[in-house]
Amino acid sequence: MSHNTFGHLFRLTTWGESHGPAIGCVIDGCPPGIPLTEEDIQPWLDRRRPGQSRYTTQRQEADQVRIMSGVFAGDDGVRLTTGTPIALQIENVDQRSKDYGEIKDKFRPGHADYTYLAKYGIRDYRGGGRSSARETAMRVAAGAVARKVLAGMTIRGALVQLGPHEIDRGNWDWDEVDRNPFFAPDAEAAARWADYLDGVRKAGSSAGAVIEIVAEGVPPGLGAPLYGKLDQDIAAAFMSINAVKGVEIGAGFAAAALSGEENADEMRMRPDGTPEFLSNKAGGVLGGLSTGQPIVARFAVKPTSSILKPRQTVDATGQETEIVTKGRHDPCVGIRAVPVGEAMMALVLADHLLRHRAQCGGT
Amino acid sequence: MSHNTFGHLFRLTTWGESHGPAIGCVIDGCPPGIPLTEEDIQPWLDRRRPGQSRYTTQRQEADQVRIMSGVFAGDDGVRLTTGTPIALQIENVDQRSKDYGEIKDKFRPGHADYTYLAKYGIRDYRGGGRSSARETAMRVAAGAVARKVLAGMTIRGALVQLGPHEIDRGNWDWDEVDRNPFFAPDAEAAARWADYLDGVRKAGSSAGAVIEIVAEGVPPGLGAPLYGKLDQDIAAAFMSINAVKGVEIGAGFAAAALSGEENADEMRMRPDGTPEFLSNKAGGVLGGLSTGQPIVARFAVKPTSSILKPRQTVDATGQETEIVTKGRHDPCVGIRAVPVGEAMMALVLADHLLRHRAQCGGT
Amino acid sequence: MSHNTFGHLFRLTTWGESHGPAIGCVIDGCPPGIPLTEEDIQPWLDRRRPGQSRYTTQRQEADQVRIMSGVFAGDDGVRLTTGTPIALQIENVDQRSKDYGEIKDKFRPGHADYTYLAKYGIRDYRGGGRSSARETAMRVAAGAVARKVLAGMTIRGALVQLGPHEIDRGNWDWDEVDRNPFFAPDAEAAARWADYLDGVRKAGSSAGAVIEIVAEGVPPGLGAPLYGKLDQDIAAAFMSINAVKGVEIGAGFAAAALSGEENADEMRMRPDGTPEFLSNKAGGVLGGLSTGQPIVARFAVKPTSSILKPRQTVDATGQETEIVTKGRHDPCVGIRAVPVGEAMMALVLADHLLRHRAQCGGT
Amino acid sequence: MSHNTFGHLFRLTTWGESHGPAIGCVIDGCPPGIPLTEEDIQPWLDRRRPGQSRYTTQRQEADQVRIMSGVFAGDDGVRLTTGTPIALQIENVDQRSKDYGEIKDKFRPGHADYTYLAKYGIRDYRGGGRSSARETAMRVAAGAVARKVLAGMTIRGALVQLGPHEIDRGNWDWDEVDRNPFFAPDAEAAARWADYLDGVRKAGSSAGAVIEIVAEGVPPGLGAPLYGKLDQDIAAAFMSINAVKGVEIGAGFAAAALSGEENADEMRMRPDGTPEFLSNKAGGVLGGLSTGQPIVARFAVKPTSSILKPRQTVDATGQETEIVTKGRHDPCVGIRAVPVGEAMMALVLADHLLRHRAQCGGT
Repeated sequence: MSHNTFGHLFRLTTWGESHGPAIGCVIDGCPPGIPLTEEDIQPWLDRRRPGQSRYTTQRQEADQVRIMSGVFAGDDGVRLTTGTPIALQIENVDQRSKDYGEIKDKFRPGHADYTYLAKYGIRDYRGGGRSSARETAMRVAAGAVARKVLAGMTIRGALVQLGPHEIDRGNWDWDEVDRNPFFAPDAEAAARWADYLDGVRKAGSSAGAVIEIVAEGVPPGLGAPLYGKLDQDIAAAFMSINAVKGVEIGAGFAAAALSGEENADEMRMRPDGTPEFLSNKAGGVLGGLSTGQPIVARFAVKPTSSILKPRQTVDATGQETEIVTKGRHDPCVGIRAVPVGEAMMALVLADHLLRHRAQCGGT
Repeated sequence: MSHNTFGHLFRLTTWGESHGPAIGCVIDGCPPGIPLTEEDIQPWLDRRRPGQSRYTTQRQEADQVRIMSGVFAGDDGVRLTTGTPIALQIENVDQRSKDYGEIKDKFRPGHADYTYLAKYGIRDYRGGGRSSARETAMRVAAGAVARKVLAGMTIRGALVQLGPHEIDRGNWDWDEVDRNPFFAPDAEAAARWADYLDGVRKAGSSAGAVIEIVAEGVPPGLGAPLYGKLDQDIAAAFMSINAVKGVEIGAGFAAAALSGEENADEMRMRPDGTPEFLSNKAGGVLGGLSTGQPIVARFAVKPTSSILKPRQTVDATGQETEIVTKGRHDPCVGIRAVPVGEAMMALVLADHLLRHRAQCGGT
Repeated sequence: MSHNTFGHLFRLTTWGESHGPAIGCVIDGCPPGIPLTEEDIQPWLDRRRPGQSRYTTQRQEADQVRIMSGVFAGDDGVRLTTGTPIALQIENVDQRSKDYGEIKDKFRPGHADYTYLAKYGIRDYRGGGRSSARETAMRVAAGAVARKVLAGMTIRGALVQLGPHEIDRGNWDWDEVDRNPFFAPDAEAAARWADYLDGVRKAGSSAGAVIEIVAEGVPPGLGAPLYGKLDQDIAAAFMSINAVKGVEIGAGFAAAALSGEENADEMRMRPDGTPEFLSNKAGGVLGGLSTGQPIVARFAVKPTSSILKPRQTVDATGQETEIVTKGRHDPCVGIRAVPVGEAMMALVLADHLLRHRAQCGGT
Repeated sequence: MSHNTFGHLFRLTTWGESHGPAIGCVIDGCPPGIPLTEEDIQPWLDRRRPGQSRYTTQRQEADQVRIMSGVFAGDDGVRLTTGTPIALQIENVDQRSKDYGEIKDKFRPGHADYTYLAKYGIRDYRGGGRSSARETAMRVAAGAVARKVLAGMTIRGALVQLGPHEIDRGNWDWDEVDRNPFFAPDAEAAARWADYLDGVRKAGSSAGAVIEIVAEGVPPGLGAPLYGKLDQDIAAAFMSINAVKGVEIGAGFAAAALSGEENADEMRMRPDGTPEFLSNKAGGVLGGLSTGQPIVARFAVKPTSSILKPRQTVDATGQETEIVTKGRHDPCVGIRAVPVGEAMMALVLADHLLRHRAQCGGT
């Protein structure tokens, strides 16, 4: 059983709080012989790093990852995984504990302050402690290692809705994703969102978002019925990300309104003699097993709960009060959730690839 | 690791195929000393049982459950759980293997036929084999046992959308749920749905649905950050149900379009000195931990894939073909998913109640 | 976490009590495509079955196993595993509940009566309930399935000590094991043991034993440091068998008295260019990983606690009393532990074979 | 599933190699609100630390532990556990990589060199890499945290055999254990062992040992039949320690030679109205559950494999060769295994205490 571990055979265990000396993780079960250095991990962390535009928090977190164990360089100097636990670590550097003094006793609406205290009888209020989204840095780092296990698979994510504004899917261009500060695959949407989010920010408010993650090159048959279904684990993976309130795969909630014939993907043969699906309402998963089509899943992120507008709340002594959450917060935490969602998809797929090998071999 | 086990401390392992001699489950970790007989379980199975209206399959499955182990009657004759594994079993009686002869080699669109074969190189095509929704009977049976562990908690479900038609939430009446064949909490919606689904059925088509599950009386603090979050496990539980394509909690996907101040639930004190939330956009979970408010979660079920309309597909030998899925199928599998969703919520809560006791005591 | 589950990827979950309607198990994670019928399992159960000589209990348990799920016959009629859970079941037939009436309230010395009551507040006293060695039938059945996964490996067991009397290792003959009622590899020892155990039985007493299990054909590299060591799992497997009080591998406890140079197995090259060890003090495991040599492990079984000699004890109401355990008991439960030990070794190896495949491929 | 994790609810995950920058661990599941600082852990590490007598390695490892996460100081400055993961870390300081140059390609007899390479295709030969006993420092550190969970329980260990020489149990004095460099509870044995081990060391050889661990104050009922037996987990815990080849509980292997009436512990009532056992052949565990008596378990450690006497072996290229293992090695690794055994017992008991609370409450 695990509170802080994700995955079964490719396992991620994370530790650390926002304002401790460091955050870290242990990756257990990684196959041996895979080249791995900090340079394989750092670019993915840099994508998630805050402070890169005015639409994310202005905290400066260098987020320099260090591999503490699990790799070894042979005679040729190439560092390879050894099959033993890979420990990764990032020092916490830009902590301003004073920013959080005033929220020490008040329960911030939308935050885990009240529930942590209710559960544990104690909470580390500095920067949200363990519930801080800072922990997602380790997910991204571990996801980078998982990607190295997923040879031939491509995992990409994009923001498809910011606040109430969706992208135009006709404009979808993966290359656009890294050209705007929103990970938007639609340049026009990105332009509109910039205006919209400026307004939100100036109003001291915040916005939610919907993120889509697509995994291509996934062989058919990954997943394990009935309680290790691939989409079940994807749903768990996404829902474990801070502030996520909904998860769907393929047609998702819209499937409820389709007819049976609209929804079920028909099949035909390709000229090369392999079967193909004529649509992908299933989102690449049938019966909990991958179909070989792209896996397409989405998750909804609620608007940032830390806002400048005054809110009613109570404090730990039972007094009614108001709170304004100052500090340096993302006006839309959903933006930086894109690389986190990619990482979680990579972790799920790496785990299921190993699970599949164990029982069915091959692949 | 588990393919066919759900939960950590209150653990459900299921076995059995649609057309084997029986289906069954093992419940491990149930606290001792709880009165338990078949009569505690059977009513929940009867709610799920098919053939009770023209809107569900006409298969006759008596679904008589038998407790095979884990209970013992003391001198007073009351059968109590002993803390050892509770095995439940239901014999399969109404099997018509011949119904499935024609789909032996063809991949039914929307079904797991292709993916099971891709994964395992073999598939039990009779009635869907292991991927048959018949397995959900054991979930409902186990959920009945879980409910007995959840003293003081109430778990109820309702159909809130059938095909494209939603209920009117102003009409919500829990008592109505068991008065109509749709588990609809809105009598007017039920009447409209009857007409709609008659049309769907006559057209040889099928419809999807959205189910809402509400758990009341859940104490604050259940759940385990960061990878044992209560909502993460609810999402996994729902997504593990056959044909589910989306899961959300509280405001869910709609949260993405709210502003921060609309979304985050404010707090005040009740006259009795306990804190209360002024809304429940969170759906009863913050930071992965229960808030003490009702837990409100929804899942979307795709339209039944077995329909009478002819569909294009291929067969195991790579030939293109057409298929019409005869047999006795639910025009909307979402209806009977209501008791299954309740059961999964009960299983998640029982598991987390025990997990909470282990680390934090009390409750 | 598991109370009643053994293994990780090749997982056994057992259920059932001595005097319930049946005992059973679920095997999850078995690779697909393996031919499996009851005939593959029954012979192993027959070896363990009681009542075959005067040295084991005279209870008549037919122990007819039935495969309830997880296999499917293709067009050629050969039943193959499908990769889904394999449920096995044995009906309990020869129960004499009245035999146990007098021990309903008394704690039998050496039995789990007191501890079950202390833990659960309730105990099924009929035949030992869940703590009955009857459960080991399911281990043997599951072990038979595990053997089918271990192509090329041979797992055999033998009794090497009965009471204080050891075999002469110079007489070791595997063929002898199935020729005497003790699973002794030494015909002379078997003859002496017959006399000895007759005396023990007539005296209303009982005897302990030491069992040795040898696995040959195990490829090097199975096991997983540091907490999934092969010998760690073998130790856990053996210690989980009823009445086992000690476990050792290779030189075992005797290793403590050896010098470093006596103990560490030297290596040389075989003419065929493969490395060989010049001795096997390690018992086939170094650093928790198999060496490719035979795995040799032993476990000690305490003398049967149910004896005819009167013993002092107390009852559930706190009264001091005496007890004589009538009924049909093995004078040496260690004898029938031989096939159980073999089965547990097979389960550990099957689990580790799949674990190895997951991380390292091949094999 | 876990390669590098021990325990279920009180979980230890370790990482790190002998010659990496650090070793560390994550403890997950620790109850909140427990005072914890480095000062609670360091004394136990100091007991295990090498270089304190001429009978242990002369490596100088300061082994200063640092708590990286999971504790938080409230207003009174007392650092308490928060219920979130506790990460501990020790920097590696005294590494002499050159010591290991010559064994880079040769397989040291009795070591895991060959098996790691066979499994992973790569091995970190520096100081044994992951298979180094250095990892046991994290077990001791985690054991110190576990002890804080085990209020009212006392866990102590002692060396009861060194090489072929046992202690005289009539001399047993727990106070003596910390007065001699062998953790011997018998001053006379310690004196004899000093001479014996000097001789072994001068001869360039090494010695094995047997360690006994005793846990007192354990309430009855801890453990979980049938595959989470307390003695099963103790056996696994001890067997996971480097160089351990045998484990036994209570009478252990000697039980095989006892008669049923000698072995089964009789019961009587104490004057205070609580039951007592008249002996402890069971070693405090019956049916996998604690009896309330002291838990008494032993494990055998093989002689150090790194010795100065030349040994035959082969190298990674298949050449036959000789090896002399220089460097700074313990002549008897069993001595420093005493605090490690205590730690493992503490980890098992903490895990089972939480497991018991989950299912049965109380305690």
